[in-house]
Amino acid sequence: MSFETVEWKNGDVVLIDQRKLPVEETYLACKTLDQVADAIKTMVVRGAPAIGVTAALGLAQVAHQYTGSDLDGFDKRFHAAADTLAATRPTAVNLFWGIERMKRCFAANRAAGLAGLRKALIDEAVRIREEDIEVCKRLGRFGADLLGDKPRILTHCNAGALATAGYGTALGVVRAAAEAGKSPTVLADETRPFLQGARLTAWELMKDSIPVTLITDNMAGHMMSLGRVDCVVVGTDRVAANGDVANKIGTYTVAVLAHRHGLPFYVAAPTSTIDLDCPTGADIPIEQRDPAEVTHVFGNAVAPQGVVVANPAFDVTPHELVTAIVTEKGVATAPYSRSLRELVGRS
Amino acid sequence: MSFETVEWKNGDVVLIDQRKLPVEETYLACKTLDQVADAIKTMVVRGAPAIGVTAALGLAQVAHQYTGSDLDGFDKRFHAAADTLAATRPTAVNLFWGIERMKRCFAANRAAGLAGLRKALIDEAVRIREEDIEVCKRLGRFGADLLGDKPRILTHCNAGALATAGYGTALGVVRAAAEAGKSPTVLADETRPFLQGARLTAWELMKDSIPVTLITDNMAGHMMSLGRVDCVVVGTDRVAANGDVANKIGTYTVAVLAHRHGLPFYVAAPTSTIDLDCPTGADIPIEQRDPAEVTHVFGNAVAPQGVVVANPAFDVTPHELVTAIVTEKGVATAPYSRSLRELVGRS
Repeated sequence: MSFETVEWKNGDVVLIDQRKLPVEETYLACKTLDQVADAIKTMVVRGAPAIGVTAALGLAQVAHQYTGSDLDGFDKRFHAAADTLAATRPTAVNLFWGIERMKRCFAANRAAGLAGLRKALIDEAVRIREEDIEVCKRLGRFGADLLGDKPRILTHCNAGALATAGYGTALGVVRAAAEAGKSPTVLADETRPFLQGARLTAWELMKDSIPVTLITDNMAGHMMSLGRVDCVVVGTDRVAANGDVANKIGTYTVAVLAHRHGLPFYVAAPTSTIDLDCPTGADIPIEQRDPAEVTHVFGNAVAPQGVVVANPAFDVTPHELVTAIVTEKGVATAPYSRSLRELVGRS
Repeated sequence: MSFETVEWKNGDVVLIDQRKLPVEETYLACKTLDQVADAIKTMVVRGAPAIGVTAALGLAQVAHQYTGSDLDGFDKRFHAAADTLAATRPTAVNLFWGIERMKRCFAANRAAGLAGLRKALIDEAVRIREEDIEVCKRLGRFGADLLGDKPRILTHCNAGALATAGYGTALGVVRAAAEAGKSPTVLADETRPFLQGARLTAWELMKDSIPVTLITDNMAGHMMSLGRVDCVVVGTDRVAANGDVANKIGTYTVAVLAHRHGLPFYVAAPTSTIDLDCPTGADIPIEQRDPAEVTHVFGNAVAPQGVVVANPAFDVTPHELVTAIVTEKGVATAPYSRSLRELVGRS
């Protein structure tokens, strides 16, 4: 990649500032837990796998910065930090997965003493980041195998290198298809209100010279009706045990449209996004965000002052609209209650 | 109304500048044919009935300003002006309907001499404007009869007082329901890229104290899945003889979503929007607009420089997704090839 989404650099958690793309490519070096938590909340970094990695690195930073000599004090500090990070955003399960993995690492290495424990935590977070890239590459190859030659792929939001530690989930499938010589082209929904499609997906695909056409969200149905789409590939913030999928607001609409047009609707997700403890999509908490994201675009009002606004950040696509869920361990299809459990258990 | 969309004022065609709403409420007094044509092209005025009225008033202005004494010269000037106005936008049939009605008035009054002809043309254009308001009120009442108490209506784009000479088509149905004591509430799609829902629909409903909640286009499906919508009411730019409906991009998507959720999908349109000479939706020309409408919002870039963009301004909803077409002469239902013809012929 010609950019890094999230990095560990001498104790700093360095993030590309995704609020400023594509106008500015700037990097934010988070030096405190509050900065890391705030970066997740305000969407400096977003995308389920990327915020999982960021939270893990945030905990690594807590370990790195702990100057005390008291193991119990460190325990307290570490778990309070984990709680702070867990409270940043509710929908993406990868956040909790990343935090839980760090907590398990803490428990497993507590006996190693303070120095050993701190080193183990930093190593674990760095490993989580590296694994995320590897996982995306593996799932990308599984996804690319599902596609024909010259696939015209519609995607929603950004499930790209910017949504992960690198390579991407949905865009990982696109990248793997490109590497396999299939010459994919992408139709990118702009994805209001935060415009991740326009600002991020278009930007990173152009950086990789993969042909992309930008449309507004409400053009997807028209493009399908004109026969200009072969399949849909999206990411997800949480997959329930029954195969229901939470993803960026508007994903459900795209799934309904794909269904009407007989187009495959693929969801690309690392197994860390699968939440077997969550029975159905109805059990996934949906984050409601600031109305100003809808009423203002880059600071300019686009709606009357005082207008009532709804701003749910995610929606749920029911499993019957999902053709397949592509993971780093293989491809799950219906019935998902069986296939997902089998896949997650696979070594 | 507390504002006028399009007016004839001492020879000026006065338009509320819809590009600047809701931030500024300013009026543009067009004094030349080029100004009127430009106002239609650049969407100072938009909405199928409103641009039909504006074109008629533009031709009235040509008549008003003609200082020659030569009937043949006036004939040439008038019909050249009609051609200029007809070339402004391709999709809405009301534009051509307004121009044709003025041409018929010209032909019928040619024998009255230059002074009589000029007066007849001005009177006709003013009458077209007044009739448009009356037509909206009548169709509004037919539409309101279809709704239950406290209907929660989702609408797309702006088919309101701002899209007509006043009162509105889809929002005419809402206003008539409010006048009938049904207490409607509206969910307004913001309608990218031009944001007519956020800027215009929200604005005019707030002016009329009708409760409105603004959402991004990609939230409509989620709201339906939560059971927060009772029906959809939209306007249209052209109805084909078979009942296929062209309307603002994204309307097709809303219709597919309504169908999935078993919700009625109503189209509100004066009979001047019905084009019996157009067999199906495939025969309706779809305007492609400037990519900058997608890549920039109020002058700010929201996408990478040089990105490829599609910007179709309209889409076609096939008749099988349309529950009813509400006109000032009554309500058409399937089979539309029969019901529309019958309705248009009705006196």
